[in-house]
Amino acid sequence: MKMFKKVVIFGTGLIGGSLGLALKRKDLAKRVIGLSRHKKNAKLALEIGAIDQIGTSLRVVRDADLVILATPINSIMEIALKIVKNLKKDCIVIDVGSTKEKIVSRLSTLIPNFVGCHPLAGSEKKGILNGRGNIFTGSICIITPIAKTKKNTLNKIKLLWAELGTQVIMLTPARHDQILAFTSHLPHAVAFSLMGSIPDKFLGLSSSGLKDATRISGSDALLWSEIFLSNRKNLLVSISSFQQKLAALKLALKNKDMGRLTKILSVAKEKREQLG
Amino acid sequence: MKMFKKVVIFGTGLIGGSLGLALKRKDLAKRVIGLSRHKKNAKLALEIGAIDQIGTSLRVVRDADLVILATPINSIMEIALKIVKNLKKDCIVIDVGSTKEKIVSRLSTLIPNFVGCHPLAGSEKKGILNGRGNIFTGSICIITPIAKTKKNTLNKIKLLWAELGTQVIMLTPARHDQILAFTSHLPHAVAFSLMGSIPDKFLGLSSSGLKDATRISGSDALLWSEIFLSNRKNLLVSISSFQQKLAALKLALKNKDMGRLTKILSVAKEKREQLG
Repeated sequence: MKMFKKVVIFGTGLIGGSLGLALKRKDLAKRVIGLSRHKKNAKLALEIGAIDQIGTSLRVVRDADLVILATPINSIMEIALKIVKNLKKDCIVIDVGSTKEKIVSRLSTLIPNFVGCHPLAGSEKKGILNGRGNIFTGSICIITPIAKTKKNTLNKIKLLWAELGTQVIMLTPARHDQILAFTSHLPHAVAFSLMGSIPDKFLGLSSSGLKDATRISGSDALLWSEIFLSNRKNLLVSISSFQQKLAALKLALKNKDMGRLTKILSVAKEKREQLG
Repeated sequence: MKMFKKVVIFGTGLIGGSLGLALKRKDLAKRVIGLSRHKKNAKLALEIGAIDQIGTSLRVVRDADLVILATPINSIMEIALKIVKNLKKDCIVIDVGSTKEKIVSRLSTLIPNFVGCHPLAGSEKKGILNGRGNIFTGSICIITPIAKTKKNTLNKIKLLWAELGTQVIMLTPARHDQILAFTSHLPHAVAFSLMGSIPDKFLGLSSSGLKDATRISGSDALLWSEIFLSNRKNLLVSISSFQQKLAALKLALKNKDMGRLTKILSVAKEKREQLG
């Protein structure tokens, strides 16, 4: 079922490129145009069939039915500002950024058919080559409509993500950012700090535990600085909450309080088992 | 090459059981006896051929050439005290505990041929069923001899771990505990605290990043409380070091200092890339 005639994707990296590939494979779009600041990325997307054509001008959006903003957060705003005058009236625009409150509040005033989305399918690895399989199948996609989001537009985007194999969950942008501050941004802040605290000379004796716990600190530094800053207040809250938990563990250790320590660890273990 | 006639293993879980299995498969021991507080574990070890026989009395060590203490840390001391009078003069005793200073200082005064060992082959999963493959091949085993460790004994144990496919590294017990406080115990303390800080109602929207970062918080709570307490001072130091790194990240975030934030994340990312 071709849902869209012409789709334009800004950013042909892991998420944008994988979206192009999935749209083509599932025959959801007639034509997919991709643009990237990095020519190499766009070429690669073309080569592996994630896009049909590399866009060379922002005016390429003129007759698009769907525009997907899949660049780092700060560029999403910039690109939206530049393309808005060229969009046809019923063109739907979505973004796939990791935070939603700022993006949705700004872009929904700018673009009548804007819907904020966040597929939880990222990775510490960048680039479309890390997304060749369908990274969306079985994953969660959070959609963040607001009061003025048109019902038709929303339904079409819900259907799109369902067709891509994701479980669609709807949240307000504010609630999204509050939750993700704990379930995604905090783990990244912790992993970067943990990695930073290991003395270089000890790295040779790393356990598999350290490797797992810090895998996401291999994520792009600029991309994640932007994400952190765009969800600053919520992230500060989640970091404080984590700091309290660690301080409690440290205190139990200091006091040689075996009972308290075991209790803290047991509660965490039980919670971890719910994650699967 | 049969290095040992009779080997007795206390604790037939992931490490102890896997050791039995590897000793048998590589034909390094003529006879392996296993003991466990949990009858089920010992039976399982027998069924899958990790041991030849279940030991029913501590006196089973009487004619052993090698005794392996593979129980949780606190039990290592207890068992050593109980079996010492039954050991023959040239019996070698090793442990595989996660901290070494306390164990080595106590057991080396008690047992003439004691060598502290720590194979970095653990997992958050307990039980021999999680170690059916050879969990030692390609891993690191740290051996912690002290001044009075006999050269012959040490060489035999180095050879044993080499035969099991590990890369043998020698450290003093104190240095071992100092390093592992950073590369293993700190990541566990952080993972338990991170898991503890995620509100239950948010667990359904967990990213793969959170799952990776907290995998080791699925580890046994009692076992890890013992490990933490047995390396208390070093762990307190490593936790403080981590707290400083996190505080620096938090400050950069508070100050909206994009440059500083990106720098912190970049340094961590570069370090992570060294881990492979």
